[in-house]
Amino acid sequence: MSATQTGYAPTERTVPTRSRPRAHYDRETVHSILDQTYLCHLGFVRDGAPVVLPTLYARVGETLYVHGSTGSRPLRGAATTDPGLPVCLTVTHVDGLVLAKSAFHHSINYRSVVVHGTAYAVTDEAERRTALDALVDQVVPGRSADSRPADARESAATAVIRLDLLEVSAKIRTGGPNDDPEDLALPHWSGVVPVARTYGTPVPADGQDPAIALPDYLAAL
Amino acid sequence: MSATQTGYAPTERTVPTRSRPRAHYDRETVHSILDQTYLCHLGFVRDGAPVVLPTLYARVGETLYVHGSTGSRPLRGAATTDPGLPVCLTVTHVDGLVLAKSAFHHSINYRSVVVHGTAYAVTDEAERRTALDALVDQVVPGRSADSRPADARESAATAVIRLDLLEVSAKIRTGGPNDDPEDLALPHWSGVVPVARTYGTPVPADGQDPAIALPDYLAAL
Repeated sequence: MSATQTGYAPTERTVPTRSRPRAHYDRETVHSILDQTYLCHLGFVRDGAPVVLPTLYARVGETLYVHGSTGSRPLRGAATTDPGLPVCLTVTHVDGLVLAKSAFHHSINYRSVVVHGTAYAVTDEAERRTALDALVDQVVPGRSADSRPADARESAATAVIRLDLLEVSAKIRTGGPNDDPEDLALPHWSGVVPVARTYGTPVPADGQDPAIALPDYLAAL
Repeated sequence: MSATQTGYAPTERTVPTRSRPRAHYDRETVHSILDQTYLCHLGFVRDGAPVVLPTLYARVGETLYVHGSTGSRPLRGAATTDPGLPVCLTVTHVDGLVLAKSAFHHSINYRSVVVHGTAYAVTDEAERRTALDALVDQVVPGRSADSRPADARESAATAVIRLDLLEVSAKIRTGGPNDDPEDLALPHWSGVVPVARTYGTPVPADGQDPAIALPDYLAAL
């Protein structure tokens, strides 16, 4: 479970049982996938059963941060469980629909990262501030400097947990369909439909002062 | 855990500890969220620890299907665990970035569905065929009729599991930022940046016969 200089050491649970060439353990690949979005699916065990919730995350170096209300279940769990809460945090980008001649070879082009580990409550005030800024900037880079920071009451209502990048793998599929040779003459269209996330025109809040210009960091999205 | 005529009965684990007005239990809302995409994050417990994997799903009536290699861990688990594998299947759409005057009130507009339950291996051949067609059509409606169906060897290599929609909730956030009144005069831009999934121009497979036209169901994406 120790991280090497250039990557994450594979473990029994980060080595897939199939499609092993799709697995990657280098930091650059993992960071790139994590840095291009902000939504993860966080899994934990509650009363013996799995729970998977969508939530925001931020990466700061080799640590991921997740935040939420102090009343939320996973965060309460991490705060009160000794020594921490076992979690699995997964991030997935869908890049394309892969249509093959055969139903069997249909697939998805994707990039995903799965992080296994233990989440701990962050109590150090400086680290909490870093994490809260990073959570805003992960969604919109540059935004934390252009909003009112949390005051004491808001900070007290916000739980922050950390998950270190130790047991980590990425999985990537790219390219066209892998049809069997005997299917290539079939008359069905085959190929890839690219999928992307796009941003629409920002909509100002009701009653917003029209003199407030759209910031450059939003136009850049 | 029983489903009512019009919706899913709330349970202790489908009632959120906060933001309760965002929770929905009616079938129409849940089906609509499930039917507008095809990627879920499937959680299960392995050796006491949570695992969350991205995978495709399909809805057929009140049942979700997931498939994969017979060698994959969750599917092997569902096939060999008696009575089935406890899972949590979560689907999330991101609809907008909500930028408030205060960092604290930043949010995401989203629609999500969380399904708790037990996954069972599907062994009935007719149900397996229905599920495999639905898994293709969930990604591209109409596609299963325009590809070669699985043959006996391919079918034998594919595990299919089912998860009935019994303990289910949707959660939806819409609208602009909910800033505190005393923050409204701050000079920061506030509002919503819409987020959408878009499809690019389909790319034919290498060597594809150029006489094969792009099917209407792809142009419709």
